[in-house]
Amino acid sequence: MKATYRAMQVKTPGNLELVERQTPAPNPGEVLIAVEACGICGADASDIDNADPALQPRVPGHEVVGRIVAIGANTPSIWKVGQRVGVGRLGGHCNECNECRRGRFNLCRNQPIVGSSCDGGYAEIMIARATGLVSIPDELSSEEAAPILCAGIATFNALKKSGAEPGDTVAVLGIGGLGHMALQYARKMGFRVIAVGRGEDIAADAARLGAHRYIDTYVENPADAINAMGGAKAILTTTANPTAVSALMPALAPEGRLIVLGVGKDPLPVSTRSLVGAERSIVGSITGSPYENEKTLDFSVLTGVRPMIETMPLERAEDAVQKMRSGDAKFRIVLTMGDQTDAH
Amino acid sequence: MKATYRAMQVKTPGNLELVERQTPAPNPGEVLIAVEACGICGADASDIDNADPALQPRVPGHEVVGRIVAIGANTPSIWKVGQRVGVGRLGGHCNECNECRRGRFNLCRNQPIVGSSCDGGYAEIMIARATGLVSIPDELSSEEAAPILCAGIATFNALKKSGAEPGDTVAVLGIGGLGHMALQYARKMGFRVIAVGRGEDIAADAARLGAHRYIDTYVENPADAINAMGGAKAILTTTANPTAVSALMPALAPEGRLIVLGVGKDPLPVSTRSLVGAERSIVGSITGSPYENEKTLDFSVLTGVRPMIETMPLERAEDAVQKMRSGDAKFRIVLTMGDQTDAH
Amino acid sequence: MKATYRAMQVKTPGNLELVERQTPAPNPGEVLIAVEACGICGADASDIDNADPALQPRVPGHEVVGRIVAIGANTPSIWKVGQRVGVGRLGGHCNECNECRRGRFNLCRNQPIVGSSCDGGYAEIMIARATGLVSIPDELSSEEAAPILCAGIATFNALKKSGAEPGDTVAVLGIGGLGHMALQYARKMGFRVIAVGRGEDIAADAARLGAHRYIDTYVENPADAINAMGGAKAILTTTANPTAVSALMPALAPEGRLIVLGVGKDPLPVSTRSLVGAERSIVGSITGSPYENEKTLDFSVLTGVRPMIETMPLERAEDAVQKMRSGDAKFRIVLTMGDQTDAH
Amino acid sequence: MKATYRAMQVKTPGNLELVERQTPAPNPGEVLIAVEACGICGADASDIDNADPALQPRVPGHEVVGRIVAIGANTPSIWKVGQRVGVGRLGGHCNECNECRRGRFNLCRNQPIVGSSCDGGYAEIMIARATGLVSIPDELSSEEAAPILCAGIATFNALKKSGAEPGDTVAVLGIGGLGHMALQYARKMGFRVIAVGRGEDIAADAARLGAHRYIDTYVENPADAINAMGGAKAILTTTANPTAVSALMPALAPEGRLIVLGVGKDPLPVSTRSLVGAERSIVGSITGSPYENEKTLDFSVLTGVRPMIETMPLERAEDAVQKMRSGDAKFRIVLTMGDQTDAH
Repeated sequence: MKATYRAMQVKTPGNLELVERQTPAPNPGEVLIAVEACGICGADASDIDNADPALQPRVPGHEVVGRIVAIGANTPSIWKVGQRVGVGRLGGHCNECNECRRGRFNLCRNQPIVGSSCDGGYAEIMIARATGLVSIPDELSSEEAAPILCAGIATFNALKKSGAEPGDTVAVLGIGGLGHMALQYARKMGFRVIAVGRGEDIAADAARLGAHRYIDTYVENPADAINAMGGAKAILTTTANPTAVSALMPALAPEGRLIVLGVGKDPLPVSTRSLVGAERSIVGSITGSPYENEKTLDFSVLTGVRPMIETMPLERAEDAVQKMRSGDAKFRIVLTMGDQTDAH
Repeated sequence: MKATYRAMQVKTPGNLELVERQTPAPNPGEVLIAVEACGICGADASDIDNADPALQPRVPGHEVVGRIVAIGANTPSIWKVGQRVGVGRLGGHCNECNECRRGRFNLCRNQPIVGSSCDGGYAEIMIARATGLVSIPDELSSEEAAPILCAGIATFNALKKSGAEPGDTVAVLGIGGLGHMALQYARKMGFRVIAVGRGEDIAADAARLGAHRYIDTYVENPADAINAMGGAKAILTTTANPTAVSALMPALAPEGRLIVLGVGKDPLPVSTRSLVGAERSIVGSITGSPYENEKTLDFSVLTGVRPMIETMPLERAEDAVQKMRSGDAKFRIVLTMGDQTDAH
Repeated sequence: MKATYRAMQVKTPGNLELVERQTPAPNPGEVLIAVEACGICGADASDIDNADPALQPRVPGHEVVGRIVAIGANTPSIWKVGQRVGVGRLGGHCNECNECRRGRFNLCRNQPIVGSSCDGGYAEIMIARATGLVSIPDELSSEEAAPILCAGIATFNALKKSGAEPGDTVAVLGIGGLGHMALQYARKMGFRVIAVGRGEDIAADAARLGAHRYIDTYVENPADAINAMGGAKAILTTTANPTAVSALMPALAPEGRLIVLGVGKDPLPVSTRSLVGAERSIVGSITGSPYENEKTLDFSVLTGVRPMIETMPLERAEDAVQKMRSGDAKFRIVLTMGDQTDAH
Repeated sequence: MKATYRAMQVKTPGNLELVERQTPAPNPGEVLIAVEACGICGADASDIDNADPALQPRVPGHEVVGRIVAIGANTPSIWKVGQRVGVGRLGGHCNECNECRRGRFNLCRNQPIVGSSCDGGYAEIMIARATGLVSIPDELSSEEAAPILCAGIATFNALKKSGAEPGDTVAVLGIGGLGHMALQYARKMGFRVIAVGRGEDIAADAARLGAHRYIDTYVENPADAINAMGGAKAILTTTANPTAVSALMPALAPEGRLIVLGVGKDPLPVSTRSLVGAERSIVGSITGSPYENEKTLDFSVLTGVRPMIETMPLERAEDAVQKMRSGDAKFRIVLTMGDQTDAH
């Protein structure tokens, strides 16, 4: 383990800087990870913009894969030095609160939000709570596995909560980092898959990812198009734009469920008539537990689902985030840390 | 069966008139009911205000109990002349559409809405589709049974969909015709029951109906009060007022469910942060099937749940509706039809 | 419509004979179907062996596809002369009993069991209750569609009730008419699929049908082999052999579910220790409703699932049943009726 | 804390002896409890009979309530010295295995079985894993709370898994320690409750505990009697006697569920025809997690459910077990430890 490590931390809100930090020792319940890859998620933009570097310069990144290089006291024996592990958005539950005690770890209020309330993976070294660790299967490279830890699990779990049965129609709104995973999972789970996006340039990708039908909202009214196909039993919204989401709600079939993944400041206006008239529902879904993350990785291996990624080196993190913000990423950028066995 | 019958029909939007009508013969699939009692539901006001008497003078009323006096062709053999039956808001499913064919009769789009798209129970005689008929148990008087057919089933079914388990906290917003049934059912299903209403005058009634706690929104912030008790796993809203409903949403516990029963014109503003952050949900619920209505009646008999009613004769229907509109009804007014075995 | 039609009816228990029958007119609620294809199911053997021809010579067959040639009174308007329809094992629910009124049509006790309590599809003409009709999608030939109506829906519905989530391990015991459909559906629903059968000769077929792993019970202890893979969240048994089923039960993972499809005379011995110790369960599943049959057909079209069939003409029904009994069918034999537009 | 404590330990299989033991210090993750009450469960008999005192003299008892007197390292901060806590059959999950990581703590294979694989509560002092601790509400005495920790949660959780809805019929087989809790919970959850027991002497108790109907199997065929009432949506079996359980299975309504709580050596013979014909099921249920135990206690407080107990001092444990074995206990015997603040 090196004495120092490089990290991209928030310099001022919205801006990153490359720094050299002292490698810490892990506290009890924690491990130290030598990061190999870190995906860039849409939420990183908000983490970077809203961080207060005066308080503590924050390292973003919550789609992290690396190897354990040190283990603190009182950590479960299932984790070993040298093991490849991942960390997603939820940084490790407390095992003490009532949400944990009823087994709903993703609802634990005492866990750090990686890249926001604790340092994340835009760095060569990351400290992680052992309760947040995810085992990575050999079949996946670190670059492939990283985006699954947030974009993957968020959509895989949402689809499992969708109430839709195999053969039912599921629509995915927003074909970006999350959406492109949702399309693949939905297809492999046996749904009739509709992709709803902006622009014809992603039509071919959507089809390749598994969509039976692509709807370009520049060209078609998406609710009309979906209703012409019989309506959707479930709609996954990966965007927080209330206008876009509202426009799609009339496409919910009776007992259809809108699964909300994207969080925004503006409230979503909901028609009570539509809800009541056919017993529709709106459900929030927030990523999942480390065990569920392992199930997501296993499913990806089993069915051949992989994120479409482009890799960039750690030091280009700011460019990478800018590219993600612009919507030009297709579909996930993953930072790589170079060969960390070398000194630098 | 008398050759004519008296009915209170919409004269002009908002007004009723007593008329004498020719008693028809039932069409195939229909029965004729000699009405004994008809509850006055909040939805009647909208039916009366929005009816177009120029088109067809509509008879309101969808909490109807009476006896079968004639049976049309092609009706199930389970219905007999002389049998006491009820009709709720949904006037009889078609058995042909896909919602019917998958067994979700309350979502059938081909069924009349009683009192709105077909004549209802403010009358001595009512025509009803056989598929909409509900068998009434002997243990209930017609006056007691009537409000169960809409206010009862709406809340009983909503509670069954609430996701709450026995011992969980359930809040009921709006302690009127529906709410006063919800409190009773919730208590008998083993929930911790919170009533949320306006004014101290219903506090004692709420307690008597089963509420463990009454919150007067004139005095307390209801969300704060509920959160002080640990939040609610389910909130039933019997009002369509978006402001009142929105004020309560922060009281939903993690994975809590808002069950919407009241339909309004104004959209309900929903915080996506609240939905996603703790996997909360919003669900619409629309009354239920005749079979489910029978289950509601059975449960009422089993557990001693009864509506609190005041009765008024048919010819005073306009006064009765006015009293309901004013909020002075405690908690359900039921029209009675007098002795129909006499001629008049 | 021809005045007479050919049918293979039970001559003596266990034997069939080809007869010419008068074409009847459909009763109210019934339609007449010109049969195009009829699958031969394992249950046909028992129907043929147990029929009492003295009582009424029974025509077996409950995987029937054909065209409507006549419609009786009081049938839903969704059915038209010339339309291609199917009939499965359940011959049309009554819409009156409590199971029907709560929407669970497959549990209706008043419906005929096709090929057993009413005549089935080993014939050029079949009478069917309209409530039992299934619409056949254009994408499927009649020969392909027929086995889906029983072997298909039985396994598709069972998998939907399995409690298993995408990525979970599902084992199928018995790779015959039902099992070969189960493998395909399970794979397309995203499960890790294990086929358990007898003999190496079906190993290649099992893999082609979607099994990730084939276990030959002549060679391996199936429970040990499955437990070495982590156990199964669900096991579908298509055989009624208690010994074979019991041998597999130790392979159920915690909270695993054994789905019983096969009915036998001998009771299944169940370890209460195994049930309680890890909250395992045993569930019966019985085919499904016509609507669910349409969903099964749609799913088959959507995902490319097809039965592996061999066709034989109606008059060779006895040979076909014999081949099915011997276990030599791979995997479904379908009777075809020849060109029925010709006279004969 | 006293230097020594008294315990009733297994002397030879089937026999207990009173001994004085040195009070240990709690290991990391453990607490020391000064026991106030310990219920005597039917499983204690088997623990006492099957213990190997040569290996380690075992202290039985797994319905334990007491106060924390010492806390080991690395225990959650929610537990404090002086706090009243309970321990049930499951002695504290590991938080590391896959069952724990998916939040199903009661299925953890690494937790001690209290009174069997670790010492239990027939003693003044007990060592307990912190993960197995249950907070006891002030409203319950220790004697009342103790039986809820096993007999209570086992039946409360089983009823929550029963699939039965409020108003549905639930039958309880075996009106002893578990059964008498099941009747109360079932009644307070809104079920129609049938008690099935042996002998008229408990008929009055059954009614008082909430049964709408008592069936004495000496007098009536229980399946016939239940079917005359429409069948049962759920049957809870608290006995492991396969003959008694089998006799009741024909009373399951369509889609009815048999919940197995009692574990026996002999297999339960199950009719596949009955399972498949109406989609019945058989489900095992094993107590629950500490959080669920707290929910059970809360529900008991909320609804007034209490075990019917008789107390006996610790030193009479052998008599108490004998009385329980004989079936004379009505319905739970609870050992009390005397005033432990005094020296002895």
